[in-house]
Amino acid sequence: MLIYESLYNKSEDGYMNTRKIELSGHIIDSLILPNALDIIMDMGGDFKILEFEIGKLKADTSYAKILVIGEDPAHLNEILDELSEIGATIAEIKEVELKASPKDRVLPPEFYSTTNHPTYIRYQGLWIHVENIEMDCMIVVKPESKRSFCEPIGKIKKGDMVVVGREGIKVVPPERPRGKKGIFAFMSSEASSEKPVRSIIENIASEIKEIKKRGGKIALVAGPAIVHTGSSPILAEMIQEGFIDILFAGNALATHDIENALYGTSLGMNVDSGEAVARGHRHHIYAINEINRAGSIKEAVDKGVLKEGIMYECIKNNVPFVLAGSIRDDGPLPDVITDIIEAQDEMRKYVQDVDMVIMIATMLHSIATGNILPSHVKSICVDINPATVTKLSDRGSAQVVSIVTDVGAFLPILYEELR
Amino acid sequence: MLIYESLYNKSEDGYMNTRKIELSGHIIDSLILPNALDIIMDMGGDFKILEFEIGKLKADTSYAKILVIGEDPAHLNEILDELSEIGATIAEIKEVELKASPKDRVLPPEFYSTTNHPTYIRYQGLWIHVENIEMDCMIVVKPESKRSFCEPIGKIKKGDMVVVGREGIKVVPPERPRGKKGIFAFMSSEASSEKPVRSIIENIASEIKEIKKRGGKIALVAGPAIVHTGSSPILAEMIQEGFIDILFAGNALATHDIENALYGTSLGMNVDSGEAVARGHRHHIYAINEINRAGSIKEAVDKGVLKEGIMYECIKNNVPFVLAGSIRDDGPLPDVITDIIEAQDEMRKYVQDVDMVIMIATMLHSIATGNILPSHVKSICVDINPATVTKLSDRGSAQVVSIVTDVGAFLPILYEELR
Amino acid sequence: MLIYESLYNKSEDGYMNTRKIELSGHIIDSLILPNALDIIMDMGGDFKILEFEIGKLKADTSYAKILVIGEDPAHLNEILDELSEIGATIAEIKEVELKASPKDRVLPPEFYSTTNHPTYIRYQGLWIHVENIEMDCMIVVKPESKRSFCEPIGKIKKGDMVVVGREGIKVVPPERPRGKKGIFAFMSSEASSEKPVRSIIENIASEIKEIKKRGGKIALVAGPAIVHTGSSPILAEMIQEGFIDILFAGNALATHDIENALYGTSLGMNVDSGEAVARGHRHHIYAINEINRAGSIKEAVDKGVLKEGIMYECIKNNVPFVLAGSIRDDGPLPDVITDIIEAQDEMRKYVQDVDMVIMIATMLHSIATGNILPSHVKSICVDINPATVTKLSDRGSAQVVSIVTDVGAFLPILYEELR
Amino acid sequence: MLIYESLYNKSEDGYMNTRKIELSGHIIDSLILPNALDIIMDMGGDFKILEFEIGKLKADTSYAKILVIGEDPAHLNEILDELSEIGATIAEIKEVELKASPKDRVLPPEFYSTTNHPTYIRYQGLWIHVENIEMDCMIVVKPESKRSFCEPIGKIKKGDMVVVGREGIKVVPPERPRGKKGIFAFMSSEASSEKPVRSIIENIASEIKEIKKRGGKIALVAGPAIVHTGSSPILAEMIQEGFIDILFAGNALATHDIENALYGTSLGMNVDSGEAVARGHRHHIYAINEINRAGSIKEAVDKGVLKEGIMYECIKNNVPFVLAGSIRDDGPLPDVITDIIEAQDEMRKYVQDVDMVIMIATMLHSIATGNILPSHVKSICVDINPATVTKLSDRGSAQVVSIVTDVGAFLPILYEELR
Repeated sequence: MLIYESLYNKSEDGYMNTRKIELSGHIIDSLILPNALDIIMDMGGDFKILEFEIGKLKADTSYAKILVIGEDPAHLNEILDELSEIGATIAEIKEVELKASPKDRVLPPEFYSTTNHPTYIRYQGLWIHVENIEMDCMIVVKPESKRSFCEPIGKIKKGDMVVVGREGIKVVPPERPRGKKGIFAFMSSEASSEKPVRSIIENIASEIKEIKKRGGKIALVAGPAIVHTGSSPILAEMIQEGFIDILFAGNALATHDIENALYGTSLGMNVDSGEAVARGHRHHIYAINEINRAGSIKEAVDKGVLKEGIMYECIKNNVPFVLAGSIRDDGPLPDVITDIIEAQDEMRKYVQDVDMVIMIATMLHSIATGNILPSHVKSICVDINPATVTKLSDRGSAQVVSIVTDVGAFLPILYEELR
Repeated sequence: MLIYESLYNKSEDGYMNTRKIELSGHIIDSLILPNALDIIMDMGGDFKILEFEIGKLKADTSYAKILVIGEDPAHLNEILDELSEIGATIAEIKEVELKASPKDRVLPPEFYSTTNHPTYIRYQGLWIHVENIEMDCMIVVKPESKRSFCEPIGKIKKGDMVVVGREGIKVVPPERPRGKKGIFAFMSSEASSEKPVRSIIENIASEIKEIKKRGGKIALVAGPAIVHTGSSPILAEMIQEGFIDILFAGNALATHDIENALYGTSLGMNVDSGEAVARGHRHHIYAINEINRAGSIKEAVDKGVLKEGIMYECIKNNVPFVLAGSIRDDGPLPDVITDIIEAQDEMRKYVQDVDMVIMIATMLHSIATGNILPSHVKSICVDINPATVTKLSDRGSAQVVSIVTDVGAFLPILYEELR
Repeated sequence: MLIYESLYNKSEDGYMNTRKIELSGHIIDSLILPNALDIIMDMGGDFKILEFEIGKLKADTSYAKILVIGEDPAHLNEILDELSEIGATIAEIKEVELKASPKDRVLPPEFYSTTNHPTYIRYQGLWIHVENIEMDCMIVVKPESKRSFCEPIGKIKKGDMVVVGREGIKVVPPERPRGKKGIFAFMSSEASSEKPVRSIIENIASEIKEIKKRGGKIALVAGPAIVHTGSSPILAEMIQEGFIDILFAGNALATHDIENALYGTSLGMNVDSGEAVARGHRHHIYAINEINRAGSIKEAVDKGVLKEGIMYECIKNNVPFVLAGSIRDDGPLPDVITDIIEAQDEMRKYVQDVDMVIMIATMLHSIATGNILPSHVKSICVDINPATVTKLSDRGSAQVVSIVTDVGAFLPILYEELR
Repeated sequence: MLIYESLYNKSEDGYMNTRKIELSGHIIDSLILPNALDIIMDMGGDFKILEFEIGKLKADTSYAKILVIGEDPAHLNEILDELSEIGATIAEIKEVELKASPKDRVLPPEFYSTTNHPTYIRYQGLWIHVENIEMDCMIVVKPESKRSFCEPIGKIKKGDMVVVGREGIKVVPPERPRGKKGIFAFMSSEASSEKPVRSIIENIASEIKEIKKRGGKIALVAGPAIVHTGSSPILAEMIQEGFIDILFAGNALATHDIENALYGTSLGMNVDSGEAVARGHRHHIYAINEINRAGSIKEAVDKGVLKEGIMYECIKNNVPFVLAGSIRDDGPLPDVITDIIEAQDEMRKYVQDVDMVIMIATMLHSIATGNILPSHVKSICVDINPATVTKLSDRGSAQVVSIVTDVGAFLPILYEELR
């Protein structure tokens, strides 16, 4: 944890371009101190380490007080801003500063932009937890209830009291665990197809079982390749057996799954044999047509039209799903939320609660999920394209396992390990 | 062109599982005849060539009458369905068959699903052109005006008269040109990064100049990498000089462009130097905030807030744009159409008119555009990822050039060639 | 089959730039006729179809006699050259033309360059089969024995009688089968990761079992990812059970396999757990050191040093292997053939005999194998990188199945299906 | 720099499983201390920081003395081994330990395996620099001359005195520079195609000019895509103007370049137009044939056969080249070194001297070069495939810039910037 100590009271001696910050915790091996020095140097600043107490034993924490020196106050502020991204906080007993939004969707100048780490603000003498934290959002304080919330710019209403500046904000980035790092490495491990996928999946399976045992929740973000590669029966079984608590997907996954359930094909390809079926693209529209006729996926299940598959099991097992529309959709199914802001809000209802997210074969929905995920949620990204998993693991979650493998192989092996 | 001839009148002799089809045109080198035989054999059918007149000279057309033999009537129909995908038509002077939609968004059984090739229906003794053709849609006939329209399933209203079955439909797939194939090959050429990109771009540039000279229209489908790679000033100039008639993009392209125009960064990376800027992600939200404050991109231009860039030039030069929302959007900008059905409809307003589409660095918007494009529109797909251009060129347009190259290199070279 | 008929005897009427060719076989659906017309038009030539008899029934062959017209004799020859690549042959009863090589490794002008299809030459009144056919090589005739051989340029000796020109050469490209195409498609199917890998592997497994049942031979071309991904025990079992008849690989596969057998690691990564092992890179050198000490892989097996793994099973089951050196090799093992010409020759000893080649996770060795493979050998390319399988299937074998999947998943599933 | 201090003399108190190490330098921001603690914890060890002096100012160095605690002596040694990979050295005034090789290519047990960082050994009371350092090799001491050399296992002769154990070895990993990191980042930056390639190339160009100004040397590792993409004239000019001091490539680059120089094609594709040329693959063999006839590339230049291109300019400007054979070679050209061990040795003659290596579009030759490169050489990897540059930058050089871009665009822009 980094703690700033304001130097304003020392500004009489002309030090407007310096400021003391404090850091404490496992700041060496969690890379907080090295990153702090790196940022300062890379931005052309200077520093002086004023105090330093190193944790002698593995469990001990360290402490550093550092004088950060910029070329001028603006440069100093830029450095402090960047330091705050890795967890820097001005810890002096100053209050957080608030300004009212002048207009719906419009932020006051100098608004604070969030990380996805646990965050606290100093408000009326207390450290208040910021609720629903996600990255690149704003902190809105409700003075009447003394609560604070993380809100995206699109939700800001005129008059909302928005946190601005750098005072009174405390961010708590994750620290390196005190032993072996395990499959959820402290820092994201390199994605590679040249790893023993079976043993990685074994580790994930035991993590999943452990989460379910303690009553935790698992979200699945699923792309249509799950159906194309013939894995939908396996995913359906996983849902039936209670391994999945919430499904995020798009029109394609749902339509292909329903097409597969009704006709045995996915975009006209026979999912068992891999052969194209005569005029098979029609099946795709047929599937949408059947659900349209029933009224919704649930009604299709209730009326006995849809009798198996991923969506069927979601309905039967009360696993909620959010189907978010995309510009390339055919149809779409009546259950698809075609307005993407509504769809994002629907997804937000679930993510704060979730312990693990498994993202399979969909860059679009995976990035959408990653955007709103708090940093403590363990994420697994599975794709055959290394570029996809790289892009996902760049998005800032510390607890991510990237797996470059065939989707058609991943789910069967995972399910085998889960049993 | 394939022409079916019904055998129903011969069914008295028990031939329910055979049917005569006719093919005419450059059916050998345009692969219509080989593909027809391939489909029949691959589906386990049989055939007998009843008549064949070969075009002796290059410009001559050929003619074939083929008896297609299935195992049973259902099998025969499957084969005929697949044959119709490559342009087969039942040419007997039967009328097209229509059935009313029973409910909004619900199709009658046996509905006909369109290709993206020019299509005609036999209605009340006349061949009527199907307007607004795009693939995987339905044909709706307006009896009062004797016009027929291609409509996606989502637009079907209760009572719409929808074409069903296989009778009275004529599809005209593109034929192989009678000389060298040129850059827009008859059949999509393999995407490869190992080709002389400069000479390919030269060819595209002269095609563009030729289209503009004859008053044709060019659509650009643009991904955010255009901004990241530093090419937005070049695209802005191309818009200013009238090379682009319509822009399809998402929130990311527009926001990054505006961020770049306002702060010189794209997602916080300095676009000139490639260096990350302190706390640069804020710039992204700042950009959205500025447009929110102004009210729209146009108002930001009018108020002098936005003074350069891609979106600025669109406004200044009356180039329409469609910004379609996606589930991973931040913000989004007020100009983004967050409902994807509305966004598709907005895109549909432009595509029938367009002569060429240039798709750069966006799989999502490019597939969305490809979905609604008639087959005569020349398409260019540019991406550094071969998987993207492969996916796009699989979507069925015959006139596609796939280029695997660096987006940051493509636009500068193209612009140089255009001048 | 294309058959040229010389027009030289008609040249008195000034037709030096025309020539009759004949084609026969399933020339429409095997694409020989369409491709021939395509080549002529794309090269700016003209044609007149003089005779055409279409095969009426599925099993019937067709026949075409075509007058090919070039702008001048040189242009005509270029067109005829290209036609010969797809199987064109001058069928007139002219003899093949031979010229002596002037110097080792030097070809006479106008040398004929081979395809990988079965090829015959007209020599002393007989059609002689060209032995050891592979693409981009030369045909050398041994007048004493009346035999002809395919030889690469590097093997040409001064005085060798080399086939030149276009007369008296007959090439027999594969034809489309008369029914469903099956897993080994007539024309290479698109590589894609979005296919049901299990059903594709099922098909391959039954093809393998069928080959082994009739006493056929299977070659494996293996990259080191097989070891990294934990599949070496499975490959070892497959060798033990007689599924593999010859192994082509490099130093890396063999060293990683031996490292894995000796220390349980591959390049220092624990193959079971996926975890890096302390100072693990040493294990790689240790493995080489152990084999160096024993003298060879065989001696290491005989001395009881090497007790399991891929190379062990090759030795124990008398499965020959060719380990070809590469410039990035560490070590290499004493069994590696460090001269690449020697290594190619060693590989050539095996390929003419082989019925199927399975190429896994190595572009280098797979292309090397593809270069020397006759077109009748069925090839399977497995790689997680679509670019690799695309590059391989571009190399001209008609009988290729490209699979984009995780190597760590492919072999376990294949082995399961084989049992 | 890490310095081990032996605890053997303290072993009387039973502490066989502990050892003191020392670290000094910019050990915090150069990540030496964090990595050391990370390794200890990840391997299940423990530590106690005995002494720590932090560098207060930017230029000051820090110092740490750490007690490393393993579960038992073997575990401790494993941890110390891994620590030595990041620069750990046992600094006690113990001598390096030597053992004689028992047999050619065979190492004594407990041999020391090198990193690619500057390395010193304590021999007869002095710190001796290890010459020709490269990674994964052995240190051989020549007692007579008191010099020590880095040698690959394949070069070890019976009786060579090889360094074993961990005593008396000092490794100096690169430290973080004391200011902005510049284009050659201290730690390898993520490869990405979404960066402004022009500004990155600008930076590389100024680095190149700076190196040439001070008389430094630049090696080019070149793949055949340079020719396919039409960039060989530009590379030829760069050689002519003295920007390249040594060329590493394979048969393909040289043959395609010569084919292009002689016939304007590369593997039969017209390099200017991108169109395939009739029977163009013959050109490839023609090119080899012409050089075979002349005797060598140099003789072809001398005889006036070869008049332009990359290889021509190498000959004309006395730029040495190493053409290393590979198993997929056609021909090959007489200048190709077909034995890969000879080729490696030829490459080794040049790399110790080089200041920068530019690797373009060849994974094989780039990895081969990276294997033998000391860590101080600046490396640039250019490829359109992110997997290639990722694989290269994983190989351990600290000074690497990875660029994912089109090769056909990179060289023209670079050359423009150089002028």
